[in-house]
Amino acid sequence: MKAKVSVVKVGGAVLEDVDKRKAFLQAFFSLATPKVLVHGGGRKATDVAARLGVEAPMIDGRRITSPEMMDIALMVYGGLVNKTLVAQLQSYGIDALGLTGADLNVIAAHKRPVKTIDYGLAGDIDQVNAEVLQAFLHKNQVPVMAPITHDGQGQLLNTNADTIATAVAIALSAEFEVSLILSFEKKGVLEDAENDESVIPVLSSSDFARGKIEGSIVGGMIPKLTNGFKALEKGVQHVQITRYDHLAARSGTQLQLSHT
Amino acid sequence: MKAKVSVVKVGGAVLEDVDKRKAFLQAFFSLATPKVLVHGGGRKATDVAARLGVEAPMIDGRRITSPEMMDIALMVYGGLVNKTLVAQLQSYGIDALGLTGADLNVIAAHKRPVKTIDYGLAGDIDQVNAEVLQAFLHKNQVPVMAPITHDGQGQLLNTNADTIATAVAIALSAEFEVSLILSFEKKGVLEDAENDESVIPVLSSSDFARGKIEGSIVGGMIPKLTNGFKALEKGVQHVQITRYDHLAARSGTQLQLSHT
Repeated sequence: MKAKVSVVKVGGAVLEDVDKRKAFLQAFFSLATPKVLVHGGGRKATDVAARLGVEAPMIDGRRITSPEMMDIALMVYGGLVNKTLVAQLQSYGIDALGLTGADLNVIAAHKRPVKTIDYGLAGDIDQVNAEVLQAFLHKNQVPVMAPITHDGQGQLLNTNADTIATAVAIALSAEFEVSLILSFEKKGVLEDAENDESVIPVLSSSDFARGKIEGSIVGGMIPKLTNGFKALEKGVQHVQITRYDHLAARSGTQLQLSHT
Repeated sequence: MKAKVSVVKVGGAVLEDVDKRKAFLQAFFSLATPKVLVHGGGRKATDVAARLGVEAPMIDGRRITSPEMMDIALMVYGGLVNKTLVAQLQSYGIDALGLTGADLNVIAAHKRPVKTIDYGLAGDIDQVNAEVLQAFLHKNQVPVMAPITHDGQGQLLNTNADTIATAVAIALSAEFEVSLILSFEKKGVLEDAENDESVIPVLSSSDFARGKIEGSIVGGMIPKLTNGFKALEKGVQHVQITRYDHLAARSGTQLQLSHT
């Protein structure tokens, strides 16, 4: 039987709110080890960019990573957010370690090819070095991963945190029974967006396909669920979408592949 | 016989200059593994502080680490400088890994007690966790350490890079034959401050004591040499003060304890 591991993604917005951060840390502390934390960015990088007078270009609502924005991402996600989290986890007795994809080459990526849009220094993942992560996990050390990868040629790249969590979960699933926990501010995938209590306990891939067509699943939930179902298809055993303070098994929405 | 390890300190100013950085990376690449790199901050944090409108308070020429300056140190040293170095070292085929003292609790410190001056969030080192570093070194992984420690209670602290390099060298000397290389912009300790070629090949602890009294050793060289001789006293086998692009054994100034 494989050992279990949890891969938890938490968004930057949760970490920027003192009470939410505390509730998240408590929930993360309660999860059994081994575990991995992947954190997003949040608004802080945009704030810092504005204060530094750096423009954060957007195309079609997507952030473009200029070299200046990459430096800010490194400062805010790779430095401030990551190391603050590590220090706080250490104070909980969790032996945390901050990583970008460049550290021990743990996530190799390449700059996203230009099709219609040049996303700048955005990284698409080539490979997660599972052995590096396993070495930490076997010692009950807890990797805390910033949403940053690298190209092996010295260039750091911006990569979405949900995508990193998914790739990490898939890479670890060869050795571990992996639970991928994509946490956010809602209790799960909602039946009715206006009703926070209308959590769908189990969402199948055919429900998802139907929801996209019918328009009941929209916006940022689509890439999140696409990542989640991809993880299940590639061997991750459990995927749940849940609130940052409810990380226990069976909380939130469980994803399930439809057997067709 | 103990295995050898090099602990190299490089200043932030060297890293901020493209040509100097390249020359340093080349020299560091040429050093045999295992090796550890400790980097300083440089002017970048002060620049970022100014651009963010954060005041960098000074008392007696020493920087005071306010909470705002600590955030900036985390961003610039813990994020930008550290991760850029790691990515560049990876491109040289060096399996680098960025660390602050909080990561795996590798350097535990406490806030400097207030005597006459409150230095703010400045950290005095309690302990270097040599086992954590050894585990990396045994795999030929290269720790790249930012000048940041933590207090175990969730607070990150600013700590001088020479001091970190010295403490790391001492901690490793129980298992390794350690060479501590404190690199900077001069070719070594100079006989005549006006003559860059007047490098003193060997400086003894009694030369140092005399130089301080006679006033031939002044300024920033005093704490650097104090660290270097402390390392020798505590079991580090070799200490040299040399230029960032001349890291090989016997370059620059070798320190030597006087047997009195």
